[in-house]
Amino acid sequence: MCKACDYTIHGHQSHFGWDNSLAPAERVAPGSTILFHCHDSSAGQLGPKSVLQDVIDLDFGKINPVSGPIYVEGAEPGDALKITLDSFAPSGWGWTANIPGFGLLADQFKDPALIVWEYDAQTMAPAMWGTQARVPLKPFTGTIGNALAEPGHHTVVPPRRVGGNLDIRDMGVGTTLYLPVEVAGALFSVGDTHAAQGDGEVCGTAIESPMDVVLTLDLVKGANLRTPRFVTDGPVTRHLDAKGYEVTTGIGPDLMAGARDAVANMIDHLCATRGLSAVDAYMLCSVCGDLRISEIVDMPNWVVSFYFPRAVFE
Amino acid sequence: MCKACDYTIHGHQSHFGWDNSLAPAERVAPGSTILFHCHDSSAGQLGPKSVLQDVIDLDFGKINPVSGPIYVEGAEPGDALKITLDSFAPSGWGWTANIPGFGLLADQFKDPALIVWEYDAQTMAPAMWGTQARVPLKPFTGTIGNALAEPGHHTVVPPRRVGGNLDIRDMGVGTTLYLPVEVAGALFSVGDTHAAQGDGEVCGTAIESPMDVVLTLDLVKGANLRTPRFVTDGPVTRHLDAKGYEVTTGIGPDLMAGARDAVANMIDHLCATRGLSAVDAYMLCSVCGDLRISEIVDMPNWVVSFYFPRAVFE
Repeated sequence: MCKACDYTIHGHQSHFGWDNSLAPAERVAPGSTILFHCHDSSAGQLGPKSVLQDVIDLDFGKINPVSGPIYVEGAEPGDALKITLDSFAPSGWGWTANIPGFGLLADQFKDPALIVWEYDAQTMAPAMWGTQARVPLKPFTGTIGNALAEPGHHTVVPPRRVGGNLDIRDMGVGTTLYLPVEVAGALFSVGDTHAAQGDGEVCGTAIESPMDVVLTLDLVKGANLRTPRFVTDGPVTRHLDAKGYEVTTGIGPDLMAGARDAVANMIDHLCATRGLSAVDAYMLCSVCGDLRISEIVDMPNWVVSFYFPRAVFE
Repeated sequence: MCKACDYTIHGHQSHFGWDNSLAPAERVAPGSTILFHCHDSSAGQLGPKSVLQDVIDLDFGKINPVSGPIYVEGAEPGDALKITLDSFAPSGWGWTANIPGFGLLADQFKDPALIVWEYDAQTMAPAMWGTQARVPLKPFTGTIGNALAEPGHHTVVPPRRVGGNLDIRDMGVGTTLYLPVEVAGALFSVGDTHAAQGDGEVCGTAIESPMDVVLTLDLVKGANLRTPRFVTDGPVTRHLDAKGYEVTTGIGPDLMAGARDAVANMIDHLCATRGLSAVDAYMLCSVCGDLRISEIVDMPNWVVSFYFPRAVFE
């Protein structure tokens, strides 16, 4: 329940992919606050009792539903939609999977794997991975975007200049996001909620977790944004940085190769020092480790670094 | 002066580029603590009273001297050199330049530019850019590495698997770095000290600042590291994150293009909201803004984000 909300978008008011011909789930005035009951990114195909076979059986035609679309009165191409992320009510469970063919190291991790998480949705204490690791939580919307100008159906997987599957870890409470508007009404949708993720989402999934999201939609006329922009109202890593980081690097003329090397080196390091299996280390890296570009100017070699928070194991 | 140090490496004990035939400046036992008097990356060509013409006149044959090399007794190929960064004594001044042909947006910023900084080396309060911006300081070593196995002279500009010009912002006090050893004695050198830099070092220079560095060298036998690895003893962004961030994005199938877009979008945003010139915004981004890879798995589009700390202007 949401006392301050003007509208509620229920679970059935969702869609797969982006299409500017979809009928709006709701038409709202600028300034409206809306509660969305968001599905997890499996659209309910996985649940708290899921096992590995359920990952193998996933129907990829029913992945990543988003709630909406919302038609914002007065929104026109060239405007920006201003989204204030007000609050999250997480469900208390989530899943992380290695899905064959998907993820930064898909060539090295060809077998499916699954972690099902339980967490305390009231305290939001770190989620336990066995008795060994504690993953700090920070709920956010993985997919948040507007409809594209181009007609037809567009898969939800890639993010685009209007947003979408951005998977930006800091799209949580206190963030204000500005998205380019390309069609009348903006046709905003949101979903793919995550309880935790590191920058990069390296294995391809976060702690995928259904939850309720409250946000406020407003307009900035004639903003002419090229890509999404956002503002955070405070620090973004304090939930996990208190004990510092273990960091590995990838060095060379290609940022993608550097990112792959940095993550592979961290997986090896965690396996050697923590006794993890490689795929478990990979999934843990995805839910709490951060990919950063340390330098991108010392020709011809760039440095990509992978930061794993020591608080997870200490 | 350094009471706890076993050796002092003076300014003249430095070299340009890497070459494993260089005579050691000192031979030390594992566990030794050493004070290095490090030059700035212009090797003294720029100073506190420098003007733009001095950037134009820079002799690039005398760029980025490193202090050393240090021969560590017992170090052999396959070992790791363990470097504990103990303390820094900054000089109180530094410079940031846009050097034509160098930097992430070299094609867009073809004219030289220079900022000369003064800062309080005792308090290490944020360095002022005019009266408008306050840049938080965090001294670190831009270049830190071992000699390569390959004979001959190797330019200092690119970092390599043995380290070198890593320009990793977190190579400061409390960090422990592990570098692959490729030649007997490791032949370790350090320099290119920075008073502040963001992840990416996007304009190609940081707050370049001569300073003294104290560090301890030790060995991990048979570590067989592929690339540098390090551990921080605490958070790495608390000097600048208190008021949150302004963030711009670049979205697409190429990480380099995404990084360029994210930075160009931030420059436009700072010009529009803070009344800066584009080149000033570019240099400010270099000394305090961070490039992060938000997601690298949502085929075919990746998200690179540029985080500019609001504390600089607020």
